[in-house]
Amino acid sequence: MTLHTDARRNHACLIVHGPDQPGIVAAVSALIARNEGNIVTLDQYSDNPQGGEFFQRVVFHRADLTATMPAIEADLEKTLGPLGMTWVLTDQSVPKRMAILASTSDHCLLELLWRHRRGELPVTIPMVISNHTNTAEDVRSFGIPFVHVHSQGPDKSAAEAEILKLLDGNVDFVVLARYMQILSEDFLAKIGVPVINIHHSFLPAFIGAAPYKKAKERGVKLIGATSHYVTADLDEGPIIEQDVARVDHRMTAADLQARGAYVERAVLSRAVQWHAEDRVIRHGNHTIVFSDRP
Amino acid sequence: MTLHTDARRNHACLIVHGPDQPGIVAAVSALIARNEGNIVTLDQYSDNPQGGEFFQRVVFHRADLTATMPAIEADLEKTLGPLGMTWVLTDQSVPKRMAILASTSDHCLLELLWRHRRGELPVTIPMVISNHTNTAEDVRSFGIPFVHVHSQGPDKSAAEAEILKLLDGNVDFVVLARYMQILSEDFLAKIGVPVINIHHSFLPAFIGAAPYKKAKERGVKLIGATSHYVTADLDEGPIIEQDVARVDHRMTAADLQARGAYVERAVLSRAVQWHAEDRVIRHGNHTIVFSDRP
Amino acid sequence: MTLHTDARRNHACLIVHGPDQPGIVAAVSALIARNEGNIVTLDQYSDNPQGGEFFQRVVFHRADLTATMPAIEADLEKTLGPLGMTWVLTDQSVPKRMAILASTSDHCLLELLWRHRRGELPVTIPMVISNHTNTAEDVRSFGIPFVHVHSQGPDKSAAEAEILKLLDGNVDFVVLARYMQILSEDFLAKIGVPVINIHHSFLPAFIGAAPYKKAKERGVKLIGATSHYVTADLDEGPIIEQDVARVDHRMTAADLQARGAYVERAVLSRAVQWHAEDRVIRHGNHTIVFSDRP
Amino acid sequence: MTLHTDARRNHACLIVHGPDQPGIVAAVSALIARNEGNIVTLDQYSDNPQGGEFFQRVVFHRADLTATMPAIEADLEKTLGPLGMTWVLTDQSVPKRMAILASTSDHCLLELLWRHRRGELPVTIPMVISNHTNTAEDVRSFGIPFVHVHSQGPDKSAAEAEILKLLDGNVDFVVLARYMQILSEDFLAKIGVPVINIHHSFLPAFIGAAPYKKAKERGVKLIGATSHYVTADLDEGPIIEQDVARVDHRMTAADLQARGAYVERAVLSRAVQWHAEDRVIRHGNHTIVFSDRP
Repeated sequence: MTLHTDARRNHACLIVHGPDQPGIVAAVSALIARNEGNIVTLDQYSDNPQGGEFFQRVVFHRADLTATMPAIEADLEKTLGPLGMTWVLTDQSVPKRMAILASTSDHCLLELLWRHRRGELPVTIPMVISNHTNTAEDVRSFGIPFVHVHSQGPDKSAAEAEILKLLDGNVDFVVLARYMQILSEDFLAKIGVPVINIHHSFLPAFIGAAPYKKAKERGVKLIGATSHYVTADLDEGPIIEQDVARVDHRMTAADLQARGAYVERAVLSRAVQWHAEDRVIRHGNHTIVFSDRP
Repeated sequence: MTLHTDARRNHACLIVHGPDQPGIVAAVSALIARNEGNIVTLDQYSDNPQGGEFFQRVVFHRADLTATMPAIEADLEKTLGPLGMTWVLTDQSVPKRMAILASTSDHCLLELLWRHRRGELPVTIPMVISNHTNTAEDVRSFGIPFVHVHSQGPDKSAAEAEILKLLDGNVDFVVLARYMQILSEDFLAKIGVPVINIHHSFLPAFIGAAPYKKAKERGVKLIGATSHYVTADLDEGPIIEQDVARVDHRMTAADLQARGAYVERAVLSRAVQWHAEDRVIRHGNHTIVFSDRP
Repeated sequence: MTLHTDARRNHACLIVHGPDQPGIVAAVSALIARNEGNIVTLDQYSDNPQGGEFFQRVVFHRADLTATMPAIEADLEKTLGPLGMTWVLTDQSVPKRMAILASTSDHCLLELLWRHRRGELPVTIPMVISNHTNTAEDVRSFGIPFVHVHSQGPDKSAAEAEILKLLDGNVDFVVLARYMQILSEDFLAKIGVPVINIHHSFLPAFIGAAPYKKAKERGVKLIGATSHYVTADLDEGPIIEQDVARVDHRMTAADLQARGAYVERAVLSRAVQWHAEDRVIRHGNHTIVFSDRP
Repeated sequence: MTLHTDARRNHACLIVHGPDQPGIVAAVSALIARNEGNIVTLDQYSDNPQGGEFFQRVVFHRADLTATMPAIEADLEKTLGPLGMTWVLTDQSVPKRMAILASTSDHCLLELLWRHRRGELPVTIPMVISNHTNTAEDVRSFGIPFVHVHSQGPDKSAAEAEILKLLDGNVDFVVLARYMQILSEDFLAKIGVPVINIHHSFLPAFIGAAPYKKAKERGVKLIGATSHYVTADLDEGPIIEQDVARVDHRMTAADLQARGAYVERAVLSRAVQWHAEDRVIRHGNHTIVFSDRP
């Protein structure tokens, strides 16, 4: 159900958010109709029909979209502004620019590169940045630039500054594909684009380091992975997607880690895809995910 | 996310179906807005944006719904008729009347009765009909009438006539909860309401009798269950829901059957719930299911 | 693969536990062979082949088992004692006696009673004890005694004493089927049989009260349930089984609770079955579960 | 729980198969004990305790295994021969040689190569053979030889002869990783090693070509994949592993195919791993799989 590059041509995605009130759906769909758009999918959610907040995602087709965008935007401003609604309109044929930060692990990184090559992720990948060099050849074999940013020692500020310089103006979001450096509050304040992480546990269980070791010690029967937006509070950001795998007493912490890698790559891929397709709306420390999961 | 009895008060469900064309969503939502309805959920699907068929399900809240229904229906006729669309408007506070046909097995039957008692199935159950008597006491302990219709011998016409007479005018749909009699074409022509069956295999594998035995013989590693609308073509009706469970070489056909019972009761329950909530639209031999699966 | 009552006749289950050493499997299987037993299933596990601990579960068939048990036990003592191994031999045709403690919720309680009636749980149920009366009629319709033990107010000691008196000498294990009273350390010290609980979260996430509310607040995308042996440390006992279900932003805490009930009854049922079949070995705060999961 | 290269040193796998009879487990474990082996895992299965067939898989550690193998084999012959049992003893430190046949699709192929590079598949890969050239560069980037065997036109005999010549003496089993040519009966008769296929449906549903198209037409709610040993009867060979994914009405046949690719690569990988680890025993048209699934 992912719209591939060709299929995304002349498709716009409209995200609307604001106080719930009667007639919003009618107002938005009338706006699209009078601008000659044809609605392809429409999702909406209100966290409380009485005085709650309203969220909507509409994908519509409009011939000659690029030329028409300014007029539609003006209409949106005129129509939704007085209702106190905010909105974002994006041209679905313009892929988001996604940078990947990685360390030595290749499972999440290669999965993203491979899905991208298959045409399943509507993004461009201007660069992969790693604090290690072991994946350089793999990354470049996908035709993606690889940049090594050295990050040894306790002071990460030079490395972070170098990364910020590389990203500045070049990316729409950043994915931490098992990047093993904790990003400073200062870095997050400066980066200016969403950052998506994959944590190797079913948060909020096993927050912090070495979750597979902790899982083994607690004797759980399921391990999991969690993809979330990065905030200054470590492992506490809004969760986008989670999944689990069954484990048992025979498995060592290393076995859990090996098994968990498959959960991590799947969970992160789904989160990245939904973000790239404007399916995820952040709301406080929660997400509304208008996923296409069957 | 199921709307419970109280929550369903003053909620209407509108199903719209017809040729896809620009502006339908706007027309429908404007209609709801001008009739002072507030959209709670909206799902839509077009099987082809260019000249395909369009399906929509909208649940909206309208104060004093009962009194307003005729006016809304008139507006629907006036608005959608010219567009060639068909529509059905239902008051969600009026539960559908569901009869259950059963035989000796109790797993699907009791699960439905129990979910109903929990308030999770928005139906009333005017009667359970069985060609056996073993579940009579259980059924009556839920406060549901139990009727035994004897069905021995090759000629089922008397039994079928008796069942038709019991159902006539009293039910909105019928559920075959592991009912082990094949219904005649004549019966199905006369019954006049949808009939939902649970088949004990992942159709179209193992059509016909004894699917667990066939599954054991073929050596499959998954068994399944399928809930579908009953048509004159045995096991060929539109599929509503399916699920599977893992099995292995150690399990006998009897073990598969025991394990499969848990899949059957879950699959049938979901199909019944979605049908009762007007989430299932039949289209040829397919279903569009606007499910609430997360 | 569960051995039903008839199939369990003349079947013994032998659990062996102790320091891993070469030749144990040979010693045990030779012992069974010379006592004319025929091994039906055999599971084993060593947590470290070099100096670790060894665990084995063997089910074997022996004609005229009851008369032969003392001789086999004597042989076990003579053979395994010198190796520093402990062992337990149980006649599989003797069902364990299981008491259930419940409160108002019926989903776990009825599931256990129903599986028992189907012959899927190799137990007898001498009594259900509840601090509420709402499930009395349901329980008795299964032919199981129901005892109400009043438990209001902060001092639970009288209620606990009454429960202990009811259980004393009458049960082999106790199941807390959503029993909403915290058992005192004193009670647990006196009870003398294993106690199995179902916790409504994927432990160790959301320890303590109101886990569905906490899950909603954290915005997780999966909810879970955990069955574990009860210890003096609340929610910290050895985990037997866990499972999860997917949820999304549309669901309220009440929806999570309704959805979670299905996970709870399934997880608790599996844990109870495995315990009743001597498939679970406690080892520190872990379990070795020789499950029959395909 | 997969034993990695180092961990597999001095580990042997013994497969025993023959008429079930009392004392086999004891005989085998005594044999291993007197040959100074230490049992690491033991699985067994009898398809009928009364006169059925018995299957056993034992992995044991023996210091200096290579030098001891002949003596153990002689003991096995002497011990099991008179009981009518057949057996196979393999040195687990010797990886099986696996050739992969592929066409244009890369998802199964790359998954196998990548898992192999991670050390998760205990095989060597002497070559990948394809009737297309598009994956050549990818395959060689893993350090694996790629051979293009042209296969156009109705007569496949020249291509098959070329493949047979490449494989002859060089491989222990062959994997069809979405290889889109039907192998002739003659080829299968000559190849002399097991051939594992991945079929893109949950067999026996949708046998033959274009299963995703057929699945769309039937309106199923789950799609699947099946890995099986190849026999002369197309899609009828013994099933090793299966899995499914949920789909819905919104998905086109192309969407099903894209989604199915993830099921296919997972199912084939598990089947290959279990075969490589001697966990799969063929028995008529069935398999006994002593999997390590938790």
